[in-house]
Amino acid sequence: MKKTPVIIDCDPGYDDALALVLALGNETLDVKAITAVAGNVPLERTYKNAVRICHYFGKEVRIGLGAVKPLVRELETGEMVHSPSGLGGVTIPEEVPMPKKENAIEVIKSVLEEADEKVTLIPIGPLTNIALFVSQYPELRNKIQEIVIMGGAAREGNRTASAEFNIYADAEAARIVFESGIPIVMAGLDVTNAFQILPETFSEYRAMGKTGVFVSEVLERYFDFYQTLGGVFKGPAIHDMVPVAYVIDPTVCVAKEYHVDVECCGEFTYGRTVVDFGGLSPDKNVKVLFESDHQRIIGMLKDSICHLNRR
Amino acid sequence: MKKTPVIIDCDPGYDDALALVLALGNETLDVKAITAVAGNVPLERTYKNAVRICHYFGKEVRIGLGAVKPLVRELETGEMVHSPSGLGGVTIPEEVPMPKKENAIEVIKSVLEEADEKVTLIPIGPLTNIALFVSQYPELRNKIQEIVIMGGAAREGNRTASAEFNIYADAEAARIVFESGIPIVMAGLDVTNAFQILPETFSEYRAMGKTGVFVSEVLERYFDFYQTLGGVFKGPAIHDMVPVAYVIDPTVCVAKEYHVDVECCGEFTYGRTVVDFGGLSPDKNVKVLFESDHQRIIGMLKDSICHLNRR
Amino acid sequence: MKKTPVIIDCDPGYDDALALVLALGNETLDVKAITAVAGNVPLERTYKNAVRICHYFGKEVRIGLGAVKPLVRELETGEMVHSPSGLGGVTIPEEVPMPKKENAIEVIKSVLEEADEKVTLIPIGPLTNIALFVSQYPELRNKIQEIVIMGGAAREGNRTASAEFNIYADAEAARIVFESGIPIVMAGLDVTNAFQILPETFSEYRAMGKTGVFVSEVLERYFDFYQTLGGVFKGPAIHDMVPVAYVIDPTVCVAKEYHVDVECCGEFTYGRTVVDFGGLSPDKNVKVLFESDHQRIIGMLKDSICHLNRR
Amino acid sequence: MKKTPVIIDCDPGYDDALALVLALGNETLDVKAITAVAGNVPLERTYKNAVRICHYFGKEVRIGLGAVKPLVRELETGEMVHSPSGLGGVTIPEEVPMPKKENAIEVIKSVLEEADEKVTLIPIGPLTNIALFVSQYPELRNKIQEIVIMGGAAREGNRTASAEFNIYADAEAARIVFESGIPIVMAGLDVTNAFQILPETFSEYRAMGKTGVFVSEVLERYFDFYQTLGGVFKGPAIHDMVPVAYVIDPTVCVAKEYHVDVECCGEFTYGRTVVDFGGLSPDKNVKVLFESDHQRIIGMLKDSICHLNRR
Repeated sequence: MKKTPVIIDCDPGYDDALALVLALGNETLDVKAITAVAGNVPLERTYKNAVRICHYFGKEVRIGLGAVKPLVRELETGEMVHSPSGLGGVTIPEEVPMPKKENAIEVIKSVLEEADEKVTLIPIGPLTNIALFVSQYPELRNKIQEIVIMGGAAREGNRTASAEFNIYADAEAARIVFESGIPIVMAGLDVTNAFQILPETFSEYRAMGKTGVFVSEVLERYFDFYQTLGGVFKGPAIHDMVPVAYVIDPTVCVAKEYHVDVECCGEFTYGRTVVDFGGLSPDKNVKVLFESDHQRIIGMLKDSICHLNRR
Repeated sequence: MKKTPVIIDCDPGYDDALALVLALGNETLDVKAITAVAGNVPLERTYKNAVRICHYFGKEVRIGLGAVKPLVRELETGEMVHSPSGLGGVTIPEEVPMPKKENAIEVIKSVLEEADEKVTLIPIGPLTNIALFVSQYPELRNKIQEIVIMGGAAREGNRTASAEFNIYADAEAARIVFESGIPIVMAGLDVTNAFQILPETFSEYRAMGKTGVFVSEVLERYFDFYQTLGGVFKGPAIHDMVPVAYVIDPTVCVAKEYHVDVECCGEFTYGRTVVDFGGLSPDKNVKVLFESDHQRIIGMLKDSICHLNRR
Repeated sequence: MKKTPVIIDCDPGYDDALALVLALGNETLDVKAITAVAGNVPLERTYKNAVRICHYFGKEVRIGLGAVKPLVRELETGEMVHSPSGLGGVTIPEEVPMPKKENAIEVIKSVLEEADEKVTLIPIGPLTNIALFVSQYPELRNKIQEIVIMGGAAREGNRTASAEFNIYADAEAARIVFESGIPIVMAGLDVTNAFQILPETFSEYRAMGKTGVFVSEVLERYFDFYQTLGGVFKGPAIHDMVPVAYVIDPTVCVAKEYHVDVECCGEFTYGRTVVDFGGLSPDKNVKVLFESDHQRIIGMLKDSICHLNRR
Repeated sequence: MKKTPVIIDCDPGYDDALALVLALGNETLDVKAITAVAGNVPLERTYKNAVRICHYFGKEVRIGLGAVKPLVRELETGEMVHSPSGLGGVTIPEEVPMPKKENAIEVIKSVLEEADEKVTLIPIGPLTNIALFVSQYPELRNKIQEIVIMGGAAREGNRTASAEFNIYADAEAARIVFESGIPIVMAGLDVTNAFQILPETFSEYRAMGKTGVFVSEVLERYFDFYQTLGGVFKGPAIHDMVPVAYVIDPTVCVAKEYHVDVECCGEFTYGRTVVDFGGLSPDKNVKVLFESDHQRIIGMLKDSICHLNRR
């Protein structure tokens, strides 16, 4: 079967971990590399967590060490959501064999150069690595199929009223990527906030073997944070799974094309993804996702769990 | 019957004209004054149009001459929508007796000082006059019942993807008003874009006597612009009537309280009304309107037409 | 002798007090009014201090109560420099008969309307009152001779590296005034930082009667702050006297005309007066002062002290 | 003799060409690599001009191809100053053997990794390449001796009243570099505007052999632009030579340490290097150059011309 080659740029993080399970276990994706970026927790941890997860599932994937901080702004992490280690309370081994360190930008370059078809990038953390890559190697843009991002919000943000966490974390990087001319898909809060896995279903995963136990532990710890929000969320919103699901099968989401700008100044609007709903700008540079078929995505996740168990 | 004392601050403009018909003909409102501001067309025209409308309906209302330009920015008018005169193609007399010029800020001050109860301000143009008033006379704020604004957008703008025309026109003024501590109601595009009067109903107004003819002429000329938008609007959106209708009867709209900031910097977001849907800020300073009962508002308009005809 | 009619808009404040002594005692100035603004200390204090000073010197001057806060931003005062009361440690009576409260904008309007010649405005605090006035009464601009401002910096600031205190306090107001089209003279830090009265000369004032004692007390208390700066200043810089001295005799300063913009956004530059030294903009809207003749200004001060003593 | 290893990042450009002559001919510098960036003219031309110059002087230097545009903003070039080709009117061969293309960031990385001592970076164009390098390879910062920049202005700018051309061209990159923690030296307009080579001396260079003819041609064409400025400059300001001269011998310049921020927002101040003269910030991150010994630098240039002739 023809597989879709992808690179996942991430900052695990609980929902990143589930996105990696979904991607690594999916039979239609070929995860060429994982690149880590500072975001939910510092780079040292996001990198190590990516290594730990691949090791736990016996996957030999190239793992790149990316940017230690956003391009221009200082790093603001989300330990309150993701625990100081990024995967606190999840019982996979802490100490695992560490691969030779490879620079994330070099990894992306090398994967694209070696690929005989276009590769899809799936960044689910701040866009620092991707911005560095497209700035440094513009000649390789035509090897990128599209960039399917978890980030942004056409309507309300979560880090601020205007901005979603990943874009707020490095709005200058986001602007570089959104204005790059490469096809962009934005899986923002408009679609991801609604993709919640309900706590009454956690036990289903716990019953699904080693991988299922991992998934259920991640869900439980991630839900700990959501329970502090006073009932707005019925379960944890698994943001980072949505762009992976979209790459597996774009029909799980409703997409509309718009012009989108990223605000890098502004007293109340830094990091806002300004979606031009009214069509004031003729240039539509982003596919914005609005709805997803939750049951189909959950089905994809369970398939991935089964496949990973088998290894 | 006890009437609600109001001051209407406006920049007529087609939809301002309909808002004035609604207010002047309504038996529960006592229009203490009308103040003109530069906006849809320059001040000279908005002032004259206010005078012409009151004269046409035989209403003796104090009319104040307000700010000739926004506080900080240059004036940007909307002649493309409202015609160069603001009421182009509407057959009311151009030359009418002009009253002694009174400064709008002084008019507002004098009305509030003389009032033995609180007065409601209904600004339906840029907020320059209101900002000047609250900056100059903070001690009179407690004489203001609330400020019910046509302006802003919790979701998409119309002047830019981020901003609605009235707020974009003078965002610094809007920020002053929104942060004033006075109760604010925002009838923004979220509620007003949907309040359209359909062209197939225009003839109903034409049949309603002198005032109805005026209303139908305004609707037709205003619709000329909306027809250039390629079918997004089925009829002209009568933005400025919504806050007047809300003051007549708040139950015609669905209101929710939020914290709202006004962005005055920002490369893509100048003039955005940032609505804190997620409750990140504890301070709720604005009632934001989201839906209105179109048939009830249209009924209010027809009542006003009948009352104005009788005079 | 023909006198120059002036209005002094101020926030006393130690150096404001000296500027008032200079102005009230000068025989070529006719101080038509003093208007108080929030700045160095809150409005309640700046107003009261203006009243106290006029009372102490037996001057019956109209005193207007102005803006309680900057137009857009929150009030940031300078009690560290000027003491909580604005005149702490200066032994003039605290409780004096208070005049009927008059609104500062109304006072300026009334003075200009009544004047049969043009009046010079000398704002030596944040420009809030002046901005409100020129926004509300543009038709009276031709009654203003010029606006001679203490504020701004062509080179380095003092509130921040970019901005001087008065402009930083209300940059939006400053921008309104600088862009008003009225002739502007900017006595910024470039000229005022160097106008220091040296502590070894304080005793000269103490020997000059009642007014001299007042002046020496102000100088001593004001110097208390400057001594905390580690030797950069040999004596207190009497910023607010410079524009008054310039109005008395423009030849005491070196002036050059430039285009000047006021930055109202900017992460590090809010409140910067951007002086176009290179002549990139053809429109020269401000006379910027660069040097002053210290001995002549001190001579003017001593003359004023003598005249005030005589009353 | 021990030589100082340097990398020159440039956008030739007339004054870049003279900086390269100075550096390539100087016996105390070891030019490890030249990296080209888009700036004065587009990247294709700056790269080719760097190759042409090295070829003309028989220098085999690694030449890296850098960023084709600034990080966030669009490219704004300076063809008005530097001619469309960057070296218009200078009679060196246009077509020369082109080396294998190497990525500028990879070249810098490789030079630093191979160096057994610290290397000095001399960026004399927009800081895009340097910002990409320090963002991607923070672990190599300790191999950088210092970054000696032509760019910025403590006082007035040239691209705008606030900003110098190179910093304005990519202020986000400049901010990344200035905040990197690496020792920074800023040879801004404060020192470089005054370093003019007077037209009456151009003939001296013309008499100095092949290299001298090149230098005189560059000076004459560069002066063509300066003559359009109406007499403010007596000769062309050879901005880009100053940081090279400083690296050859720091005693040719007067340097003072300050905290410097780079403004990336601001309506009138984008690209301003905000120099904290007053010491409001305790952290001094930049050595700012203020004066240079023109005759000594000219002497250095003549020495370089002689050395290059000999080859």
